[in-house]
Amino acid sequence: MSKILRVNMSTLSVVTEEPKEEYRLLSGRAFIAKYMLTEVKATCEPLGRHNSLIFTPGLLGGSKVFSSGRISIGGKSPLTGGIKESNGGGVVGIKLARLGYQAVIIEGLPKDAQKYILKITATGAELLSAEGYWGCGVYETAARLRQDFGEKVAVSCIGPAGENRLLAAGIANTDTEGVPSRYSGRGGLGAVMGSKGLKALVIDDTGLGSIEPKRPEAFKRVIQEYAQLLKTSPVIKNYTDFGTAALVNLTNAIGGLPTRNFSTGRFSGADKISGETLRETILVRKGKPEHACMPGCLIKCSNVYVDEQGKDLVAPLEYETIALMGSNLEIEDLDVIARLNYLCNDYGLDTIETGAALGVAMAGGLLPFGDQEGAIRMVEEIGKATLTGRVLGNGAMLAGKVLGVLEVPVVKGQAMAAYEPRAIKGTGVTYATSPMGADHTAGNSIRAGLKHNSREGQAAFSQKAQHTVPIYDDLGLCLFSMGVLGAHPEILCQLVNAQLGTDYVFEDLQAIARNTIQWERGFNQAAGFTKVNDRLPEHFTETPNPAAENAVFDVPGEELDNVHPDLELQKSQKDCMDSAC
Amino acid sequence: MSKILRVNMSTLSVVTEEPKEEYRLLSGRAFIAKYMLTEVKATCEPLGRHNSLIFTPGLLGGSKVFSSGRISIGGKSPLTGGIKESNGGGVVGIKLARLGYQAVIIEGLPKDAQKYILKITATGAELLSAEGYWGCGVYETAARLRQDFGEKVAVSCIGPAGENRLLAAGIANTDTEGVPSRYSGRGGLGAVMGSKGLKALVIDDTGLGSIEPKRPEAFKRVIQEYAQLLKTSPVIKNYTDFGTAALVNLTNAIGGLPTRNFSTGRFSGADKISGETLRETILVRKGKPEHACMPGCLIKCSNVYVDEQGKDLVAPLEYETIALMGSNLEIEDLDVIARLNYLCNDYGLDTIETGAALGVAMAGGLLPFGDQEGAIRMVEEIGKATLTGRVLGNGAMLAGKVLGVLEVPVVKGQAMAAYEPRAIKGTGVTYATSPMGADHTAGNSIRAGLKHNSREGQAAFSQKAQHTVPIYDDLGLCLFSMGVLGAHPEILCQLVNAQLGTDYVFEDLQAIARNTIQWERGFNQAAGFTKVNDRLPEHFTETPNPAAENAVFDVPGEELDNVHPDLELQKSQKDCMDSAC
Repeated sequence: MSKILRVNMSTLSVVTEEPKEEYRLLSGRAFIAKYMLTEVKATCEPLGRHNSLIFTPGLLGGSKVFSSGRISIGGKSPLTGGIKESNGGGVVGIKLARLGYQAVIIEGLPKDAQKYILKITATGAELLSAEGYWGCGVYETAARLRQDFGEKVAVSCIGPAGENRLLAAGIANTDTEGVPSRYSGRGGLGAVMGSKGLKALVIDDTGLGSIEPKRPEAFKRVIQEYAQLLKTSPVIKNYTDFGTAALVNLTNAIGGLPTRNFSTGRFSGADKISGETLRETILVRKGKPEHACMPGCLIKCSNVYVDEQGKDLVAPLEYETIALMGSNLEIEDLDVIARLNYLCNDYGLDTIETGAALGVAMAGGLLPFGDQEGAIRMVEEIGKATLTGRVLGNGAMLAGKVLGVLEVPVVKGQAMAAYEPRAIKGTGVTYATSPMGADHTAGNSIRAGLKHNSREGQAAFSQKAQHTVPIYDDLGLCLFSMGVLGAHPEILCQLVNAQLGTDYVFEDLQAIARNTIQWERGFNQAAGFTKVNDRLPEHFTETPNPAAENAVFDVPGEELDNVHPDLELQKSQKDCMDSAC
Repeated sequence: MSKILRVNMSTLSVVTEEPKEEYRLLSGRAFIAKYMLTEVKATCEPLGRHNSLIFTPGLLGGSKVFSSGRISIGGKSPLTGGIKESNGGGVVGIKLARLGYQAVIIEGLPKDAQKYILKITATGAELLSAEGYWGCGVYETAARLRQDFGEKVAVSCIGPAGENRLLAAGIANTDTEGVPSRYSGRGGLGAVMGSKGLKALVIDDTGLGSIEPKRPEAFKRVIQEYAQLLKTSPVIKNYTDFGTAALVNLTNAIGGLPTRNFSTGRFSGADKISGETLRETILVRKGKPEHACMPGCLIKCSNVYVDEQGKDLVAPLEYETIALMGSNLEIEDLDVIARLNYLCNDYGLDTIETGAALGVAMAGGLLPFGDQEGAIRMVEEIGKATLTGRVLGNGAMLAGKVLGVLEVPVVKGQAMAAYEPRAIKGTGVTYATSPMGADHTAGNSIRAGLKHNSREGQAAFSQKAQHTVPIYDDLGLCLFSMGVLGAHPEILCQLVNAQLGTDYVFEDLQAIARNTIQWERGFNQAAGFTKVNDRLPEHFTETPNPAAENAVFDVPGEELDNVHPDLELQKSQKDCMDSAC
């Protein structure tokens, strides 16, 4: 991976360049952080011409390391006003990496109303007209692009939500079967893509295979060892069997399942939407309870949820969606949740942000809690970008402002994921302090050995998690591989060194990860963020969660401020590179 | 003025107390700044229980000094998230001062849905039920309160907009005739009042006269001198003859009249909405071209605009409204603008914020520019708080977010007043750097001897103006008296010293004013503001104003940062007090 593709939508120029020295051996989330801090005006209008949209695979992207093909999409978030890295599965990252791209950077805004597709192949890249695709849902878009450009191409695209620059819009990536349901959902990056008049990336790596490891013998040894660990891990087996939905019963038991616009953490209908029920329903209906989103994944947390006739409803149906569009709305019918999920996917919407906005709409009296048909209608309004749709499709914070609802589950303007932060305070600390806003993927404490509704140890845990996660995001590894590699940093290092020919020790990887966070915080600071932005909304700190022993979020401000002390950058990136061969 | 009235809406307690030492000789804007910094959690939810709403007359309030009866209403603004002082005319300030109140502070939130009126008389204060008033427009509210509590009472009240906690809601104060059209319009303080379940203050000063000067002989001499200056000032005569509307031709000539959502600064229909046309129309129709909003005002900038049958349409019709709801919407009919003004007044809406939101709505395609009936219908929707009404009634910024309009004329979330900042850069500097957001009253350069669309000297002028204005806001003086007193600081000091028995020199008044700004900035900083918040929106710095020689707003960031260097507080308040007798 030694090329950067720069596409300027203002001049319509498409240029392949050598990466600057400072970007060497940075990829995924680390590349986004360094690039944004270096090249993008932090105070820019996120939907204006100074923002960029970056697609970058991780350092291990395109290799034979299992689950290493994640794609990082980044830019300045129109929801948070800060930096965003939104991480997705599927095959986009793999193919970009195989084509040799460290990053694809989309800059500028088109001067007229023309809309574009960016086609990237082994022989180069070009902008094509998006006529005929613009206006289509993501399923139709991907299907037609694969029809027009070949079954094997990977697609990253937006739906009508992104086209309409709605702030809940995400970017859909295709999976192994070409289905565009692997979402880089968070932070409103679909709106950024829409602002740039870019409907889709079409990536064709025909003729290219996996990127061979620099040290084949060492690679062979360590990959076998890693495979063995994955196959015998009970954590991984749980992901395979139940997917992320296994969490429903777990969070519900501790009062941490967002319910009724995050007003409580236990849902009377939890049993009907649990991972166990989901698996059973899929098995009875002959869907797929296990499914891999990218080739070479042994975790297979995904699933294919089907209707009573066995016809695909949506794939995958995941915990975040089940909670945000289920318990959070007091909807206890998996088929309805699947329908909502499908609609969001097709319109190109983040299900977390959309579910949170619907919860706010229900709290604001726009429709009653539990109104299944109403919820579907509202999502359809978002798809059509009616005024009601625009109110909800711009996310929970804006919906709350318009509807006069003060109890809005957001941090830095972005909706919380499906961990109620009074009941699960470690994740609450992450929500508060992550440069990303309320992302669970930035450092989730749900599997930590903590008393979740006590404030003890939460900040320390979150800090460690937040400083570890970027290692995976920088490498392009699925976070779930942490279930094995977290306990085996030596395996992780051997994988990296065998593939890249580096001589990293774990501290080097940690240093890059910490630098990633520091760069992100540097960008946010330049954008105007202060420690005031590193807090949860007032009501979470004052109104008890009745399902979690009436806990409030009471992690003290000083502890939150110390999660990311603004240190000098860790052992500099240059030092890390110097240790590479 | 030696009493503070504290009303706690959570406990329904009403307590009169001695002011703490640190509040001594602070009133108006200075009191708000010091109180907010000292007692209110800067990060609080503006519509939540930790915010306060303060009513405070100036230090000269209730005296016989001309135009000294302004009322300062303050709190944390739900629009800007920072401190707000919103200054209004009428008789509320005068009566509060005569009753001996330095400030009335409303704290907390009611525990149930009960709504209240706060009645304040010479014998005490009490909370009464607002039943029968809640839901009424401000005209009916004031009329009925005067019917029920006596013709002479003063009223501060909100309309349906404030009740619905819409962020464009202001607070209406009654004038000499009991008409509630003297607005503390800006910053959404009507929503704060609504959040507290408080419909109105009813202030009865029966039996009390003007506050006598401490040094009657000196007062007699200086007040005569001041009267003479007022009567012979051509600036004042211009205000008397044309009101603020005299500015239409002036700003239009230099390309600074906000037109078509601030996209340009010259309006083809300017002549039809000018001060001259306004005066002529009023004279022909036998309205009142001159009108005083408070007793003892010699400036009389107000007017009573009537229809063709001579029936009152609205009083006053002012420049800001004419520009924001006229040229900004490409509406060139004074009768329509008067109707929009009346509706806003009655619903309890800031005409600046509402006009800016309508401009954004037109830019976003919700209705066409120039659509008079559409504009009226939209304001009616705000009054009814329909979904469309909520989108617009929460101000220009929110409307822009919902409708996907990036060109929104706001700073710190609050709409710009009627001075296009690329054409009138001094006021642009004030918009950018005032702790208040885009208020013209914080330091307007329109009458400065500057080339308005050049960046030279603008920051220095704005700084001086911003550091002078609080002198007037602290004393309760109408800003227009600066037209005379600005050139005669010795008269100002003599007035103050004769009335209060102090021995202030002008530097003392300047010190209090600078402290006021520093306290405000201290609050805003604690609320999370940085210099990033002291900037105009991106498009004003990049897109030329074709009517102002294609100027962009190009005052450099360092100059903006230096307008309010975060100095140690000036000569401390205590020092100033020590010089008082």
